[in-house]
Amino acid sequence: MSTDVVDLGEKFDLFREHWSPKLVARLNDYEVKLVKVQGEFVWHSHEETDELFLVIEGTLTIQLRDRDVTLEPGQLFVVPRGVEHCPRADVEVKALLLEPAGVVNTGNAGGELTARVEPI
Amino acid sequence: MSTDVVDLGEKFDLFREHWSPKLVARLNDYEVKLVKVQGEFVWHSHEETDELFLVIEGTLTIQLRDRDVTLEPGQLFVVPRGVEHCPRADVEVKALLLEPAGVVNTGNAGGELTARVEPI
Repeated sequence: MSTDVVDLGEKFDLFREHWSPKLVARLNDYEVKLVKVQGEFVWHSHEETDELFLVIEGTLTIQLRDRDVTLEPGQLFVVPRGVEHCPRADVEVKALLLEPAGVVNTGNAGGELTARVEPI
Repeated sequence: MSTDVVDLGEKFDLFREHWSPKLVARLNDYEVKLVKVQGEFVWHSHEETDELFLVIEGTLTIQLRDRDVTLEPGQLFVVPRGVEHCPRADVEVKALLLEPAGVVNTGNAGGELTARVEPI
């Protein structure tokens, strides 16, 4: 992780895994992470925090229990705390995530997709 | 301000003022703001918080006392709390700001460029 200028494109070139957010910047006790996703994640919620998604490349669908939210590049959405959601992408998506440090990607669901956040 | 999908491009089309951040989303007690800047701001610092700049369009120079940081589209930089800085842009820049709610744009400097943050 750099404490200097962060070039999102360069950072995305440093990893290939899906559903494994990488830490690229800290802002107080918040973390900016980059993630590549493809396929469907798991339904989960974060009881303690909102979660921001900003799509950089591709089309991301954030399934909510009552509707789907579709994000194109340059669009962001904040999933409110406690709201169940399940991201899905037919084609690989590059996205920026923002949330407090320590948030686990699978929230209350856990399971094999739970990823440790590594700085890059 | 929308509580739904936020399209950055559409939001930028809604205002023309420089140095007057507009609130487009909330994440817990943090705010996502959009700002257009051109010319030189004032030297200031935020004693209580880091401040994130993500450039969407144009070239932004963040002058620090010991160096200049230059940001192109897709690049971000976090100004650490307490660090004096002065943004500058020869040509209009569109940028996304992230910081806790209530942060004043001119920080400890005050003055005529101090702007009230309006939601859009």
